[in-house]
Order: sequence, then C-alpha cells, then structure tokens
Amino acid sequence: MNIPLNETILNIKPSGIRKFFDLVSEMDNVISLGVGEPDFDTPWHIRDEGIYALERGKTFYTSNSGLKELRQEICNYQKRTQGIEYNPLNEVLVTVGGSEAIDIGLRTMLNAGDEVIIPQPAYVSYEPCTLLAGGKSVIINLKSENDFRLTPNELLNAITSKTKVLILAYPNNPTGAIMEKEDLEKIAQICINKNIYVMSDEIYSALTYKGEHISIASLPQMKERTILINGFSKAYAMTGWRLGYACGPSDIIKQMTKIHQFAIMCAPTTSQYAAIEALKNGDEDVKTMREAYNQRRRFLMNSFKEMNIKCFEPYGAFYVFPCIKEFGFSSEEFATKLLEEEHVAVVPGSAFGQSGEGFLRISYAYSIENLKEAIIRLKRFIEKLRNLQR
Amino acid sequence: MNIPLNETILNIKPSGIRKFFDLVSEMDNVISLGVGEPDFDTPWHIRDEGIYALERGKTFYTSNSGLKELRQEICNYQKRTQGIEYNPLNEVLVTVGGSEAIDIGLRTMLNAGDEVIIPQPAYVSYEPCTLLAGGKSVIINLKSENDFRLTPNELLNAITSKTKVLILAYPNNPTGAIMEKEDLEKIAQICINKNIYVMSDEIYSALTYKGEHISIASLPQMKERTILINGFSKAYAMTGWRLGYACGPSDIIKQMTKIHQFAIMCAPTTSQYAAIEALKNGDEDVKTMREAYNQRRRFLMNSFKEMNIKCFEPYGAFYVFPCIKEFGFSSEEFATKLLEEEHVAVVPGSAFGQSGEGFLRISYAYSIENLKEAIIRLKRFIEKLRNLQR
Repeated sequence: MNIPLNETILNIKPSGIRKFFDLVSEMDNVISLGVGEPDFDTPWHIRDEGIYALERGKTFYTSNSGLKELRQEICNYQKRTQGIEYNPLNEVLVTVGGSEAIDIGLRTMLNAGDEVIIPQPAYVSYEPCTLLAGGKSVIINLKSENDFRLTPNELLNAITSKTKVLILAYPNNPTGAIMEKEDLEKIAQICINKNIYVMSDEIYSALTYKGEHISIASLPQMKERTILINGFSKAYAMTGWRLGYACGPSDIIKQMTKIHQFAIMCAPTTSQYAAIEALKNGDEDVKTMREAYNQRRRFLMNSFKEMNIKCFEPYGAFYVFPCIKEFGFSSEEFATKLLEEEHVAVVPGSAFGQSGEGFLRISYAYSIENLKEAIIRLKRFIEKLRNLQR
Repeated sequence: MNIPLNETILNIKPSGIRKFFDLVSEMDNVISLGVGEPDFDTPWHIRDEGIYALERGKTFYTSNSGLKELRQEICNYQKRTQGIEYNPLNEVLVTVGGSEAIDIGLRTMLNAGDEVIIPQPAYVSYEPCTLLAGGKSVIINLKSENDFRLTPNELLNAITSKTKVLILAYPNNPTGAIMEKEDLEKIAQICINKNIYVMSDEIYSALTYKGEHISIASLPQMKERTILINGFSKAYAMTGWRLGYACGPSDIIKQMTKIHQFAIMCAPTTSQYAAIEALKNGDEDVKTMREAYNQRRRFLMNSFKEMNIKCFEPYGAFYVFPCIKEFGFSSEEFATKLLEEEHVAVVPGSAFGQSGEGFLRISYAYSIENLKEAIIRLKRFIEKLRNLQR
C-alpha cells in the first residue's frame, strides 16, 4: 500500500529534546534540568479566574481573534512595557501558545522558495515550520564570543534577494542570550534598508536579568514590519493553558486570522479568561518568579566558575549554555554519559542547531535543591573526566 | 512597502458563516439559528474535572500526543461504539479540536498537486486547508434528491490518477445528512480498489436520530486507510475547550504528531482532564442532549411540512437544510431579507459550497422557545413572499 505522506514532513526530524527525554523516562533517581517549562504552578488567582469561567459556563467558542477584552489587555501590556500601540480590533490575534503563532505567521508570509533567516542555536520549531510553509531556511551560526547575539555582519552575509523574514528570538532559548537596544538598532536598520520582515519571538520577554526587555518592534519604522509573538507560558507559568498571541501589521494579522479560523477556530476559552487576569493582576507573580530564577541563575554561574567550566553569562530566559568542548565529546555523547553515570538530564546543545554543538542547555526552572544536587553530580562527573584526560 | 503574503491564503475567502454574523451582531431582537454550537453548557461533572485539574496544579504541558489515559479512553470509546481497535501508543493524537486534526492531517498526507475529493455542501474548513497544504480540491456537488449522501457514481467520476484523499463528513454539517452502512460499503470498496485514503470527520457521530452512527473506518480493510477525526465539542457541548483527536494508521499519526509537536506542542491540559471524564461518565449527558435535539428536529420538520417548504429529513448533527428555490432568491439574498425583515438569522447554504445554493442551514442547537418564535417569524416572511409572487 502506498501511504500518502508529505515529503517535507518525512524529512524533518522530531525534536531532539523529546528524543532525549524518552531515555530519561525509563530511569530512576534522575535529576532533570531538561525541560523548558517553569517549575511553578500557575499562580492561584489566575487559576481561580479559569475556574470561575468554568463555573459560569463560559464553555463556548470565542470570536476567532480571541476575547475582545483579552486583546485589549494585550495591547495595554505592550503599550506599558514596550510603548507600542496596537489596535485590538485588527492588529492582535490570540493563538494556541506562541507555537501556533509561529506556524501560521510563517504560513501567512511565505511563498514557495522564500528565504527565512534563522539564527541558531534556536528553538526547535522555527526551521520545521519554515520548511512546512514551503520556505527555505537560511541558518546563521551564532558565536559564543558574541554572547550568541546576532551581529549586523552575520545578518548582511545571510541576506539574498529571496530573503523575506528574519526570525529573532531574544531572550533566547536555548542560550539565555539577550539583545540590547544598541544591538537591535543595527539589526533594525538593515531590515528596513533591505525590506525584510521580522518575526520576533518574545515568549521569554518577562524573564530578563539585566534591565528590561526591549522589543525590536518598538524601534522606529519597525512596528510595520514585525510580527511580535508572545504568550503566557513562560512569564506566568501557564504552559498547559496553551495561550499566546501575535501582534503585527493588520494586513498580516488579517491573513493569519483566516488560517487560524479554518485550522484552529479559537484559542481555548477558559485560558483566555485566565489570561485576562494574568495581564491585569499578574505583575507581582512575574516579579517573584523572576527573582527566584535569577537566584538560581547566579548559583549556576558561580558553580560553573568554581568548576572552571566556560559559560558566557546569560541574562534572559531560564537557561545557561555552558561549553563542554574541552572534554572532546559531542554534546550528545556528553549528555548521554552524564545521564547514564550520574543520572542528570540536560539537553545537548546540538538539538538546537549545528552551532549548539559543544554546549549543553541547562534549565534552571527547577528548585534550588534540585540544582544543588545536580551540581554535586556534575562536579563529580567532570572531575572524573578531567582525571581520565591527564 | 512590499508586504510578504502567501498567495494561496490571499485567494481564500474568510468563512461565509462569520461574514453573515458580523451583520447579526449589529442588530437588536435577533433570533439566531446560525451558529454551529450546542446551546448547552458543558455538563457540570465534566467542568468539575477541569476545575479539579486546575486546583491540583495540572497546569503543565502534557506529552505531545496527549495524556496517555485520555488516549486510552479514546480507544475504549472507539472500541465500544465502532468496534475499531486502535493502539493508544501510536494510533491516536489528541488535537486542538477536530479543526487542528483536519489541518495537520491534510498537511501530513498531501504533496503539491495531490487531489482531495470534497463532497459539498460541507464544513467550511476542508477546502481552505486542502489548498493551504498545497493540494487541489475536487468538489462533488451532492444532490438533495440523494438526501445529500455521496453516491458511488459521483465518487467514481471525481477520481483521477492524482486523487489521494476523500473527505467524508457524516453526520454532515450543514445538511444534517447521514450515510448508512450500505452507503458506506460501496464507497469503501471504491476507496480500496482505487487506493484512496479517507479523512472521515465524525465530529457529529454522537448526534444521530436513526440508528447508531457507523464509521467507514469500521468496515473491512478501511481502518488502515482512514484518518478518523472526532472530538468533544458537539457530543459533550465542549466547543470552547478546543479538544479533538485523530485516529489512524501509525505511519500517518507519527507524521501528524511531528507537525503537532512543532506547531502546537500539546492540546490544552485542563481540557484533556475534562475529556477523560466525558468519555468515562458522559454517556447519559449525550443521550439527554440528543433527545432534546431530536425533539427540536421533529418540531422543525413538522413546521416545514405545514409551511409547505421542501426539506429532506436530516438524521444527524443539529441542522436542517430546507430548500428555498421556489422564491427565486439566492440563499444569501433570502437570508439577508429574512434577517432584515424578521430578525431571524440563518446561514445561506451557499456558504458551504455551490451545491448549497438555494438552501438554508438552520441550526436547532437552540431552545424550543427560540425555535418556535423563529418559525412564527419565518412563516410570516414566507407568506409575504408567496403573496407577492401571486
């Protein structure tokens, strides 16, 4: 029997993160620093709004774009944090997590053969979604010596006459890198000169540890060429609610809404009510969680220093990205050995692109107790390796 | 500025249903029989499980495929209602409503230029999702004299060497038509002979009023060539929860799961817990709601008979599809006039394809009081039209 299967999807590998964690699930006494998900439950007052919506029988579809009040709150949030003014009627679409926004954003913007520039290491969805939308991915291998920021030269070298979109994802998963205003201004100028659109995935925007996050969409002439993607998963510990959004030029949001209408209908209703509460009254929760993350981040950075492991200082998200090249293993070999010998699970940097090879993604969305125990094990593991090398 | 926009999506019209209801939202005292959504709140014990999940802090991602217990319950359900045995480990994917399953199912199966046969009148998503996946839609215009069932000859005439998938959607939205075992057997034989795959959208399967629904996947040699799509929206009045699923051959489910992993991550967690409860203890609710729908259905059929309006008897879903050709208006003109003059909102049949022209979709997912008042208004409207014609 000749099963009908799309050739593009056949050639795309499943996420390297998941593959690794299938191993983990079969082991005992594993400390996992692997998953990209807050360890906090969703704050109670936000869950309570979800519960209240269910009690009131708010179990029906919302409009395709999402509840009007939620879209208004999203606009308020972008205004007060970034100074960007979006129109809730036609410049905002509520989606099933940031993930859906990435997928339908690319499906909306690309025609066959259009090029999408993807700086890596990067979140695992950008390249598959580009390919599935018929686009061609053009990878920039970011450098640790630049703290994994995108430089103007790197961008200029990647641009061709077919370049349509640059995907910019800061604070970054997996490196924890951020880009500051001066960095973004140079990138923005190139995008304007070369007429390139930006998909700016800002899902970790609330989690920065050096000043406040700045969106490239907030820079002059950039709002009209940027799809800003954000959501509730990381900032408010709401991963399971599957709620995100896209803001952007009305011409693009209009077409994204069409795909969303046919392929999804609307984002989950309970989650939308909870998200209104998050935006209205969640600032303190975000602050508390960010402080906890920052404490853990500093603990990890100190530990790496003590172990004499090279690690650039990450100022965003909840990941550190130490370099393990000195040990002569691939990052997958290193992570597998660490898992087998010390039962500590981390993600090989190579899961995020070729330029992640030689690095590990270590999530600190875990309790400080877990992190301390993990560091004891990692220390032991590394000493053993170094002794063998002598 | 040259905005990057995909040509396919630009050429797809937004849903004709929504377009019509933008009008409705601006009027007072409108009785709407338009929306394809149960009027019941989700049964309390199901909502309560969602609430309980939130209270327990079940606010995290689930596995990409969905909670294992939910997949097991889905398999139990298909076994006990259809006698089909699916493996919960690799033949089931939990999705964001049936909608997502349609979209990623087509993206998984189609290569550029592959043909998808779509019998119309049909739900508005099939054609856009086919086109967005790079496929070519081949429309069959179903006939009211066949009670809008798909006939073997109609199917045979539509098949070419490029045919990959037949979309079969019974009980049908918008016509309310069903297909019985003898009808399906003939279609199945053709699919087997011609090596065609079936996407069987059975979202209304629990709502039939003449015997029990039969899935084409339950017929011999059909499980291996059918993607069965179902969900919780219609049977359990759970539209806002956005939860559905696809069952099918593991080779196809595996690739669908890959797209789902990158584009969606997982279906909403709260909804998944509630859905387990629905499948375990929701049979009585479904029965009660089905009886209410059936009472309304009979009321409408009687009313049309009294009005001498032609309407084939629909045995599924919650729609009737009366013919209004005698009045000499297009269905859009008729529906617009009815809305303006009597403030009754129904959907023009033409929103569901060319073969819906001359018909109206009237939903009876509304209280009997609403239906009675709507019929009074419709009667008055029709008498006026007939008087004018004399």
